[in-house]
Amino acid sequence: MDAISVNTTSRCQMIDVTAQVRAAVRKSGVKSGLLTCFVPHTTAAITINENADGTVPEDILEGLARIAPADAGYAHSEGNSDAHIKSSLVGCQLSVLVEKGEPVLGTWQGIWFCEFDGPRARKMYVKVVGDAM
Amino acid sequence: MDAISVNTTSRCQMIDVTAQVRAAVRKSGVKSGLLTCFVPHTTAAITINENADGTVPEDILEGLARIAPADAGYAHSEGNSDAHIKSSLVGCQLSVLVEKGEPVLGTWQGIWFCEFDGPRARKMYVKVVGDAM
Amino acid sequence: MDAISVNTTSRCQMIDVTAQVRAAVRKSGVKSGLLTCFVPHTTAAITINENADGTVPEDILEGLARIAPADAGYAHSEGNSDAHIKSSLVGCQLSVLVEKGEPVLGTWQGIWFCEFDGPRARKMYVKVVGDAM
Repeated sequence: MDAISVNTTSRCQMIDVTAQVRAAVRKSGVKSGLLTCFVPHTTAAITINENADGTVPEDILEGLARIAPADAGYAHSEGNSDAHIKSSLVGCQLSVLVEKGEPVLGTWQGIWFCEFDGPRARKMYVKVVGDAM
Repeated sequence: MDAISVNTTSRCQMIDVTAQVRAAVRKSGVKSGLLTCFVPHTTAAITINENADGTVPEDILEGLARIAPADAGYAHSEGNSDAHIKSSLVGCQLSVLVEKGEPVLGTWQGIWFCEFDGPRARKMYVKVVGDAM
Repeated sequence: MDAISVNTTSRCQMIDVTAQVRAAVRKSGVKSGLLTCFVPHTTAAITINENADGTVPEDILEGLARIAPADAGYAHSEGNSDAHIKSSLVGCQLSVLVEKGEPVLGTWQGIWFCEFDGPRARKMYVKVVGDAM
């Protein structure tokens, strides 16, 4: 298991971590298997989406802000319930296939750390399980 | 594969199943690998979120009710389309890393079974695949 | 790793791919392990939901259209930001347990490819990692 540090700089932010994840897969030495990325936070998430046009993460963050508004009369006293809701909608973990020692991603796909209650010093875990076959 | 029984007591409810999942990981004997939790229902889900303050699951359930209202002129005759939508948004499965024989969770993270069309007798499956490396 | 072709015929569509996924699991020869389905596109997704009543996917697609409207003043010039948002909400990957050479699905569960910006010629990847235990 490897840990990747992510320092976020605003309350809501998507940060492309594809290069760091790819490096961790190479370091694992696994040629064929399954990569799992896990975010150990309850107000952040991880997703895969386009990493070609910078307006896509911007639109995703605005879309999520409409879906889970920051102020909607929540009960939780810390005032970050929108971030908890977004974390469960987007999810704090995902798996990617590994072939020939590389994560298998589509042409336009990148792996994004999603901050919903920053800025904070965050981390994510990466683990590759080799194929037993 | 282990099955965990979950008896829900209201239509929408989040139930902390962290202890049961942790016990299943220990029982598997796997020291390093990947834990997958799977809910075999189409109107329930599983998520990871804060298990310290009881208002967080309450706010998540209310947030989801705003996102997928119970009555929105759905076509499905059973009257539980909101539950089907929530199930696909939150997801019926997730994976967690296993190290030193324990699931790797963040300080505030717990694993929650999400009921969206209860009360019902539900179950979830847990399986740990060991690292072949 | 196997690739499954999916040809979609409308902008938003859910296509039941359970039979193709089941065939790929059998072909893998793995009796116990973990199946992962991965969609290498950023405007599509994959989910598990009811495959008994055809109105369920219809209601899910309409629910998603309310959650992420097609026209909401997005910045992304391609005009498909709603599809990117839906892709991150539903997710482009999922894992299913494999026992006795078959994916373990609930009675009413099917695996659905979700098109959010079609019609297009799409594909998805399927891989089964055997249990090392």
